[in-house]
Amino acid sequence: MQIQTCFSPSQYHLFNTENTIVVVIDILRATSAICTGFEYGVSKIIPVATVDEAKEYKSKGYLVAAERDGKIVEGFNLGNSPFDYMNKDLKNKTIVISTTNGTQAIHVAREAYKIVIGSFLNITALANYLVSENKNVLMLCAGWKNKFNLEDTLFAGALSQKIMQSKSFTTECDSTFAAMHLYDLAKEDLFAFLEKSSHRNRLKNLNLEKDINYCLTPDSCSAIPVMVNNSIVKLQPVLS
Amino acid sequence: MQIQTCFSPSQYHLFNTENTIVVVIDILRATSAICTGFEYGVSKIIPVATVDEAKEYKSKGYLVAAERDGKIVEGFNLGNSPFDYMNKDLKNKTIVISTTNGTQAIHVAREAYKIVIGSFLNITALANYLVSENKNVLMLCAGWKNKFNLEDTLFAGALSQKIMQSKSFTTECDSTFAAMHLYDLAKEDLFAFLEKSSHRNRLKNLNLEKDINYCLTPDSCSAIPVMVNNSIVKLQPVLS
Repeated sequence: MQIQTCFSPSQYHLFNTENTIVVVIDILRATSAICTGFEYGVSKIIPVATVDEAKEYKSKGYLVAAERDGKIVEGFNLGNSPFDYMNKDLKNKTIVISTTNGTQAIHVAREAYKIVIGSFLNITALANYLVSENKNVLMLCAGWKNKFNLEDTLFAGALSQKIMQSKSFTTECDSTFAAMHLYDLAKEDLFAFLEKSSHRNRLKNLNLEKDINYCLTPDSCSAIPVMVNNSIVKLQPVLS
Repeated sequence: MQIQTCFSPSQYHLFNTENTIVVVIDILRATSAICTGFEYGVSKIIPVATVDEAKEYKSKGYLVAAERDGKIVEGFNLGNSPFDYMNKDLKNKTIVISTTNGTQAIHVAREAYKIVIGSFLNITALANYLVSENKNVLMLCAGWKNKFNLEDTLFAGALSQKIMQSKSFTTECDSTFAAMHLYDLAKEDLFAFLEKSSHRNRLKNLNLEKDINYCLTPDSCSAIPVMVNNSIVKLQPVLS
C-alpha cells in the first residue's frame, strides 16, 4: 500500500487517488475541533465550503460553526476552537461547519473512496484503522489558503511513520519523505518547533496558545470521523 | 527583505511577487545545465514551454535542447545533462531549451521584476548577487509535474540560509522554514539524503549517477543566468 502527501487542496488533482483513503488534516484547528466534537457526543457534522451556505443552514435552525482567519464569524454559534465543542449541550446534535481551509480540503476530495478526519487528538486510533483497512492513503493537508503549512505537514509525517510500522505500507512520494523528516526534527517539542511558523504566529496574535497546546496533544480522542453522504459521522466499530 | 518559497509552478499565483526577484530552481537537471552552459560560453538560451515550439525553432536552424521524462527527445541536439553543455562548440551560440519542469517554472514567472536561474553550481555567486540587490526573493521550485520534490527544496533551503546570513533578509513563510530544516538534515551528504527520493530514483533508472553528483556540487560556476526579453543571458558584472 502506498502513502502519498498532498500539501494543498489546490494540488489534489495531481494525485492518483484510486483505491485510496484520504485523510483530511487541518490541525489548527478544524480537524482537531471535529475530532473533539465527536468525542463529546456530536452525532453529525455537515461541512460546507462557504459562509453563505453556512448562513442558509443557520436560517433553517441549524447549529452553525463558521470561522474565517482564525475568528468566529459574527452571528454564528461556534468557531473552530476544540474547546467550543467540549459542551454537553452538543450531545446528539448536528452541527454545520465552515472553516477557512478544512472544509475546502474535504470538498476537493469528495469523490474519494473514503475520507477520514485526522488530528493529533485521534492519531493512534486513526493509524490502527488505516492499517486494518489496507488501502492506499493520501494525507491531504488543508494548508493555509492553498499554501503549504508546517503543522499539517508534521501531522502527515507523524501518521505516515505510524502506519509504516506496519510493513504493508511504503512510500515513493517526496512530500511524504519531507513530512516524515520534518516530524523527526519536531517530535520532541512540536510546540517549540512551530514557534516561528506562520500560522502559529497568526494564532498567537489571537491569544490561542491554549488551543494550540491542545491540538498538538496526541490521543485524547478515539473517535474516527468519516464522510458518509456529504456529512461527517463517527465511524462505528465493526463487531467481530 | 522577505524570502518566500513556492514548491510548485502551479502555486506561483498564490504568492505576492511585487518587488521580488524570482529564483527558478530545477536542480535535476535544467537549471544546473543552464548554469553550466553559460560557464562554458553559451551566449543566450531561449526557454520554450512545449516540444512543438522547440521543433519550430529547430526547423529555423536553431540548436535545440529538449528533454522529457529525463531523456533527450528524439531528433533534438541536446538534453539537459550538464555534461551536454561542456562543449567548446557551444561557445557564443544561442540554444533553445524545453524541459519537463524548468521552462514551465520560468514561464509562470514571466511577469516578475526579475528572474534568475539557481543551482548548487552557482549558489555562492547567486547569493552574493541577491544580497547586493536588496529585493524580496521568491524561491520557485520547478518540482516534478507540478508536485513537490526534495532536490529543489533542499536548494531553496540552502540558498535561503546563505542569504539570511545577511541580516537584511528574513522569512515568515512556512515553506521556507521547511526547506531550511530539510537542508540542515541533508547538507552533510545531499547525495545520500536524496537516495530514496522519487526523482533520484527516476534518474537512477536512466544511469545518471554522474549527473546527479555534479548537480549537487556547489560552486563550480560563477555565471548568474538572468531573463532579459524572454531569453536567458549571463548577468554582466556591474563595474564600480
